[in-house]
Amino acid sequence: MKRIAILGSTGSIGTQTLDIVQHAPEKFQVEALSGGYNTKLLIEQIKQFNPKLVSVATKELADEVLKNVSSATKVLYGQEGLVEVAAATEADLVVTALVGSQGLKPTLAAIEAGKHIGLANKETLVSAGHIVTDAIRKRGVSLLPIDSEHSAIFQCLNGENASQVSKITLTASGGSFRDRSREELEGVTVEQALQHPNWSMGAKITIDSATMVNKGLEVIEAHWLFNLSYDQIDVLIHPESVIHSYVEFVDNSIIAQLGNPDMRVPIQYALTYPDRYSTPTKRLDLASIGKLHFREMDYNRYPCLRMAFESGKQGGTTPTVYNAANEIAVARFLKGEITFLQIEQVIESVLLKHQSFSNPELEVIHEQDLWARSFAESIRF
Amino acid sequence: MKRIAILGSTGSIGTQTLDIVQHAPEKFQVEALSGGYNTKLLIEQIKQFNPKLVSVATKELADEVLKNVSSATKVLYGQEGLVEVAAATEADLVVTALVGSQGLKPTLAAIEAGKHIGLANKETLVSAGHIVTDAIRKRGVSLLPIDSEHSAIFQCLNGENASQVSKITLTASGGSFRDRSREELEGVTVEQALQHPNWSMGAKITIDSATMVNKGLEVIEAHWLFNLSYDQIDVLIHPESVIHSYVEFVDNSIIAQLGNPDMRVPIQYALTYPDRYSTPTKRLDLASIGKLHFREMDYNRYPCLRMAFESGKQGGTTPTVYNAANEIAVARFLKGEITFLQIEQVIESVLLKHQSFSNPELEVIHEQDLWARSFAESIRF
Repeated sequence: MKRIAILGSTGSIGTQTLDIVQHAPEKFQVEALSGGYNTKLLIEQIKQFNPKLVSVATKELADEVLKNVSSATKVLYGQEGLVEVAAATEADLVVTALVGSQGLKPTLAAIEAGKHIGLANKETLVSAGHIVTDAIRKRGVSLLPIDSEHSAIFQCLNGENASQVSKITLTASGGSFRDRSREELEGVTVEQALQHPNWSMGAKITIDSATMVNKGLEVIEAHWLFNLSYDQIDVLIHPESVIHSYVEFVDNSIIAQLGNPDMRVPIQYALTYPDRYSTPTKRLDLASIGKLHFREMDYNRYPCLRMAFESGKQGGTTPTVYNAANEIAVARFLKGEITFLQIEQVIESVLLKHQSFSNPELEVIHEQDLWARSFAESIRF
Repeated sequence: MKRIAILGSTGSIGTQTLDIVQHAPEKFQVEALSGGYNTKLLIEQIKQFNPKLVSVATKELADEVLKNVSSATKVLYGQEGLVEVAAATEADLVVTALVGSQGLKPTLAAIEAGKHIGLANKETLVSAGHIVTDAIRKRGVSLLPIDSEHSAIFQCLNGENASQVSKITLTASGGSFRDRSREELEGVTVEQALQHPNWSMGAKITIDSATMVNKGLEVIEAHWLFNLSYDQIDVLIHPESVIHSYVEFVDNSIIAQLGNPDMRVPIQYALTYPDRYSTPTKRLDLASIGKLHFREMDYNRYPCLRMAFESGKQGGTTPTVYNAANEIAVARFLKGEITFLQIEQVIESVLLKHQSFSNPELEVIHEQDLWARSFAESIRF
């Protein structure tokens, strides 16, 4: 019986994690959940999974939840509530599925408390990879990637000697606009951007797939997760998202992980690693798919990916600022304040203005994160 | 420094093994070679690699070799010579790259002498899988597959729990006639059959690829190597031979091994397992390949593969007879005695006539092998 806590249980990864739990209730016990603003769904989850502790965004929402659940569940709120969900239960493993940089503090608290981490919040490593990987090492806990690409790499490395890896390649579907030229991206709507061809995901990550910021964040995350230089990380366009990513070894042998695009496989793998059990997913049938396509990444078509590599190589607070600028730009795009192509312009302007601090402490990261957000909000076109 | 002996050093796998040795002379020492009838090449190999012991097919050839090499190399011949090459040196690992069922006895002798086996002679497991795997277990040595498909599966299983495998899939290029219908196979020539689209291999294995007997032998071999039932083994047509084979786990995650078709990667992996070193091979570039194709295996188009599954499931002496009938049929085709499509008719006739013995001893296997050969020779059309 594995005891788990989920930060972000009402989001896309959170609900799919609970789907896995529901499919094998004898294997998992839910200790704690955090649900942000979606109290309706959170209340349902509390009734079904009986966590000892939950947290929501505000005191008002906490009061609302309290009225609807039994007294066996403690209800907290805000950043403190998130930290308690992450660190204050008997959970063995914490799934960090919060969207954006709010995941950082609770993740560090969970590591400090000796929890293994099922990492779905990529901004944690992007902003504070040096701090988080250091904490993981010191505390001797596992950092288990949930993102399908990183889970693929993690699975491909099973039983292999990390020093014999020459490169890894993250595959990218190309997102909702992969078949449009840059000219055709002028004036695309929010609704169009939210149609991802392969994966069912939250709004922000779907936009991030279309801009390739998502892949950029994954590149930076892979750098930290697998201790690789940026020159050892490639990105390849693979529209079908069937090969989820692969590792190339020094002998030119490649090990790849494949499957239908379904996050429940990597989620469950993080929950049950190193074991595998059946999942409520469909088997991959390559014969019926017939063809898999690959094409080189075009960094002119996807400047956000180029900026991610540059930010990662610069290091320090630059990846934090890249990520923060993007979070604001995507929010502004979703609100209709800026166009799709202006997302990359916001990021670029913020990066240009930014003075990077190397090896930053958490407070410096936080300051620069706030600075980037505020500057990104202020940009007018 | 790994000490190796090679059974079949002048054949396709043998020469490629020596190419690997030549590329990393500091890692390997050649203890013994066997070279069949190709004394010219064997003499060159002796001069370059200085083995302590070599063997050729006949006394006459042995005398010829003796005249051309220094007295530091002992020269033997015949089946006894093969057994000495396999078992009587200080080699840590014996590469068994003989063509056909002659590989069985020396392989067992090598296992008995405590050598690890780099297995490229698939008939060994096909004819005597129960005896060979038992000997391997008892002697505690490793059986390292060299065939690209089995090496792929072996690599995919690194660090995994074998009990969590649901299926394996061996990929098949389809061979030299993959785009011809059965009607178009009438009257094809030996020269046409020898044109394999992807792999540079010996004549027999190239014909076996065109008939799909090669894949059939691999299926039976995989059954023994990985301790899987025949229902757990699939075959998929994949013309590019880029995905060399893959393993599907109970969670529906697939791990695949990929690379350019170059036997030197799996050969070296068997020599250096579990480590990997650089190989004199080309990196795989999926973007420049662009597309990978897959289609379901058609067992009506390739009846030899269907017969292999049936022979494997029946077990006992049936796979031996399947293999022996094929060896004779291919030899007769190469000599121009029978047509390409008559290869499968020979195998079918022999299987129909055969009375299978279950759990056979080596002598019974040998008897049935001889019976099948003699009957296969006698069939007239």
